[in-house]
Amino acid sequence: MDIYKTIRLDKQSKTPLYQQLADSLLLLVEQGELEAGTKLPPIRRLALMLDVNNVTVINAYKYLESKKAVYSHVGSGTFVADPDLNRNKPITKTLLTKKNLGEINYGNYINFADTSVSAELFPVDRFKQCFDAVLERDKGAAFSYQSSMGYEPLREAMAVTLEESGIKTSSERIQIISGAQQGLDIISKAMLKTNDIVFTEKPTYYGALGAIFSRGAQAVEIPLEEDGINLYVLQRLLKIYTPKFIYVMPCYQTPTGICYSLKKKRELLELAYRHNFYIVEEDNMGDFSYTEEKPVPLKALDYRNKVIYIKSFSKILMPGLRIGCTVLPKAVLQAVDSAKYSSDISTSGFIQRAFELYLKSGDHHIHTERMRSVFGKKYKLITDLADKKLSKYFDFQKSRGGLTLWLRSKNSAVSSDALYTALIGGGVLITPGSLFTSEDEDIMRHIRISFANVTDADIAKGIDIIADVCSTMNTG
Amino acid sequence: MDIYKTIRLDKQSKTPLYQQLADSLLLLVEQGELEAGTKLPPIRRLALMLDVNNVTVINAYKYLESKKAVYSHVGSGTFVADPDLNRNKPITKTLLTKKNLGEINYGNYINFADTSVSAELFPVDRFKQCFDAVLERDKGAAFSYQSSMGYEPLREAMAVTLEESGIKTSSERIQIISGAQQGLDIISKAMLKTNDIVFTEKPTYYGALGAIFSRGAQAVEIPLEEDGINLYVLQRLLKIYTPKFIYVMPCYQTPTGICYSLKKKRELLELAYRHNFYIVEEDNMGDFSYTEEKPVPLKALDYRNKVIYIKSFSKILMPGLRIGCTVLPKAVLQAVDSAKYSSDISTSGFIQRAFELYLKSGDHHIHTERMRSVFGKKYKLITDLADKKLSKYFDFQKSRGGLTLWLRSKNSAVSSDALYTALIGGGVLITPGSLFTSEDEDIMRHIRISFANVTDADIAKGIDIIADVCSTMNTG
Repeated sequence: MDIYKTIRLDKQSKTPLYQQLADSLLLLVEQGELEAGTKLPPIRRLALMLDVNNVTVINAYKYLESKKAVYSHVGSGTFVADPDLNRNKPITKTLLTKKNLGEINYGNYINFADTSVSAELFPVDRFKQCFDAVLERDKGAAFSYQSSMGYEPLREAMAVTLEESGIKTSSERIQIISGAQQGLDIISKAMLKTNDIVFTEKPTYYGALGAIFSRGAQAVEIPLEEDGINLYVLQRLLKIYTPKFIYVMPCYQTPTGICYSLKKKRELLELAYRHNFYIVEEDNMGDFSYTEEKPVPLKALDYRNKVIYIKSFSKILMPGLRIGCTVLPKAVLQAVDSAKYSSDISTSGFIQRAFELYLKSGDHHIHTERMRSVFGKKYKLITDLADKKLSKYFDFQKSRGGLTLWLRSKNSAVSSDALYTALIGGGVLITPGSLFTSEDEDIMRHIRISFANVTDADIAKGIDIIADVCSTMNTG
Repeated sequence: MDIYKTIRLDKQSKTPLYQQLADSLLLLVEQGELEAGTKLPPIRRLALMLDVNNVTVINAYKYLESKKAVYSHVGSGTFVADPDLNRNKPITKTLLTKKNLGEINYGNYINFADTSVSAELFPVDRFKQCFDAVLERDKGAAFSYQSSMGYEPLREAMAVTLEESGIKTSSERIQIISGAQQGLDIISKAMLKTNDIVFTEKPTYYGALGAIFSRGAQAVEIPLEEDGINLYVLQRLLKIYTPKFIYVMPCYQTPTGICYSLKKKRELLELAYRHNFYIVEEDNMGDFSYTEEKPVPLKALDYRNKVIYIKSFSKILMPGLRIGCTVLPKAVLQAVDSAKYSSDISTSGFIQRAFELYLKSGDHHIHTERMRSVFGKKYKLITDLADKKLSKYFDFQKSRGGLTLWLRSKNSAVSSDALYTALIGGGVLITPGSLFTSEDEDIMRHIRISFANVTDADIAKGIDIIADVCSTMNTG
């Protein structure tokens, strides 16, 4: 708090006090005394320290906010803005360091960090047939330019596939993309400009923030509850901000695994209609449901075309295919298509053609059922083991779907980073909650364990090791 | 000029005259009286009309320029800026309309508009072997996530391939991208923010402008001469602007086909070193040289790491592969890599693996020589015919490379749009110069004819039809 004592206000000056205060604060920011992200003192406290009216501080903060020098979060205060927010900052430095743990020889570890399913489950023979059939049929023409909206027969096959999830649309509304990340990137390119606001879940996927930040836009995070996003907080934030869209993953969210209740999905849609914002829904886990009924995507309930739907095949198949699709409301279609064209013209025509044959053959349906069966068993195995051996150290929710568990340490003294490091020593890789936040203490208390690419034997062994390490850390 | 008469300046006011004038002009812009692109009156003329000093007008224009409300082009005056420049505007409306002439049934035309080489020349059997070998060797793992920099063995193979063009680099500096358009898009994402300036050639490729505009940046065009960009204009513009980079295609430029002289390449590099700007060099045509010696890319001459090189394989192979690479100076590498990650994470690992086998086999070398031989003959055929039958109606330059001719109508009354329409009637598709400009009259006098995907017989037939149509238009 000492730096605020350096502020001298001249009550005789013609310059209004609030302006003097704002200028002094700006100077502190420019001199680096107040770094981006620093919380400014509460209004009453600063007013008291400087012997001025509350209104003076309020007006100074307002002025700074209009200059984008600070931003306020309801309930948590006013913070120094990052002047470089419009530079590319997809992932904060800490997070990047962790992501780059790529130096590790993964083969030596029980890898609960990998969220891609085992390559052995990929229907490689089936795809080989599709690739061969395309080359046989189209020869070199298989590699010609595609429309930026995608290869028409694949768009039609996608429409049929989506109908199985309850999404009724037509091929004209479907764009083929090079994976879900590109989907969010081109939607951001089409819809966002500097300082625009996007709402996201808290925590959310850092890659998504990368696409949003690359536009110079700002993300306002909204906490998750057991049944989805906190609508009370969302409504309060809607009084302050006009978001360009909200980015959500209602089916087994990344990283929490939370599945939205039907009620919450409907309420979120009604809010979008009432307040006229778009919902960008990413669906990469909807296929991994281990209940009788698959959860319904938001898009299937969207009767007023406010949901922009992104479908990923990176989990149910393999990420290296780099294929996915979006369903676009007519109002944004042209802008997103232009953004796709200026990004990479079109997705590989060859892969699109092969993928069309694969979808049309009906094999995708068989493959999906197989995946649900394989991972449903693994899910039961890991949750049973976690109940038995980890419930002493962690709380966790069972969504009966997805490929991960999100565990909250019962001991507030045990951080996910410490656990992460200790577990590496024990031969186990997990994802620490800190990968998904730079400051939230509750999120940092979480770890994520993925069973996407771990054998049953290793799951058992790995859970034992986690229990052992936790036991040591809690007593030690 | 009438609207300027509505401006009333109060010489008694405390507000300086230049400020009053600037405010009045801003009002006219806001009211829509002065549209984006409108040229403001010359300084002396406006000063005379309003009965003020030249300096008043100069200061008003300067003030408006600092507010980005106007921009000046050396030698041509001051223009009203586009307030929506930071929205996505990859291609202007006119251009989009033309691009969408896709409704045409191309099969019925002699297609001099298509710049992709005939699919029949693609080494499809060779690629089939590579795809099969990858699936056999790596199975499902061929589809796992790649590093956003690319599949390491392919990066090494690219380094070897680039060395054949004189570019000495190492795999760490090479990033694999999903085609050249993505290269420029992620470089723009990493380097540009709103209102940044990029220099481009005039005319240039509209897709490139799309990537630049998507960042809210502005492009300042610099005319081309027979041996490359006009360095005199470039130097004058460097006194006004600080460009983030200049985007050039020194080897058989799009759309003009111009090949930079070695002297000009060296001079451009020296300017980049002296004024500290980057050169983004796109190379999609360097392989199509019909002279003894292939032209040297700028990157091969760049001894101070100021060239960001983008290599496309869309012409020498097929665009649907969606693969290319960039060579990145160390200073921009991390930012471009982050931009790639947030754009699509990585390029398809499967295609990358197959492409590595193809490059390593040495077959690319054989394929390239074959293409040079095939298109060298076509180039001779079309230039001989054009000399004989079109020189009465057009001027054109012979660069002895590339896949297109850029013809300038000798008759200023004949616009490329009129020719385009008349030729469609004659069963011939060409690209009108208007696709590459929205106002430049000289560029609009040009047409581009591509022999990338036309048989020898159709070339002869097509040139005859063009001559006939020109003959009618010039006499009619």
